[in-house]
Amino acid sequence: MNCPLCHPQNETILYQTEKWRIIATEEDPNILAFCRIIWHEHIAEMTDLSQIDRLELMNALFILESAMREILKPTKINLASLGNVVPHLHWHVIARFKDDAYFPKPIWSSPVRENKVILPQNWQEQIQQYLKNHL
Amino acid sequence: MNCPLCHPQNETILYQTEKWRIIATEEDPNILAFCRIIWHEHIAEMTDLSQIDRLELMNALFILESAMREILKPTKINLASLGNVVPHLHWHVIARFKDDAYFPKPIWSSPVRENKVILPQNWQEQIQQYLKNHL
Repeated sequence: MNCPLCHPQNETILYQTEKWRIIATEEDPNILAFCRIIWHEHIAEMTDLSQIDRLELMNALFILESAMREILKPTKINLASLGNVVPHLHWHVIARFKDDAYFPKPIWSSPVRENKVILPQNWQEQIQQYLKNHL
Repeated sequence: MNCPLCHPQNETILYQTEKWRIIATEEDPNILAFCRIIWHEHIAEMTDLSQIDRLELMNALFILESAMREILKPTKINLASLGNVVPHLHWHVIARFKDDAYFPKPIWSSPVRENKVILPQNWQEQIQQYLKNHL
């Protein structure tokens, strides 16, 4: 199986357990504050998880949202589980800002301006520390 | 406050409680199997909810996902809480199909083909019935 989430390369891991990992991703230079939570096992949908695993994953999602809100002070948090290209369960957790390249449009649309957001240089380390304290 | 989710017009309500409602939306003629769960109170983020309210909302979300999977047999379910334009907490729950207008891209990108999906005429009633049985 040739799944890039089963065989990751060059990930910046912010937190991980036996079942899932939180990574920072820089795949879109227009969107800097972009994290992913990836369920290790190759399943497609939230309703493929047991109820207890689902609760665990959602708990991690909301702690990551809290971390990004506290540390980055975004205009809005965007959460999405899509997986059409790679049907391996993962969540996008994105801090959006009024002056990012797409705001208020979704990051999957076309940019409407140049990105003007500058994040704290050590934001990923701050998120790591928050997750370590709260998970 | 001029929030369209606080003052809805022409919604097709599939299920509702005192705290939230599930609606079908036809705002994109390219994407027919598109539901929303809207939290009644005007708050912005999932982490603005109490833990018990959050669990209730997520439970509704996953029962709606189950309903759409069973009735529509989609290629993939897409879940998203964005709210950049309208910062009033709501979830998009979208059944995606290999031959819909955007697949495998997100529905917020540009169409790549004409939509070829034909849904059962009474799919909304079937979802309504499923929600009534399971919520």
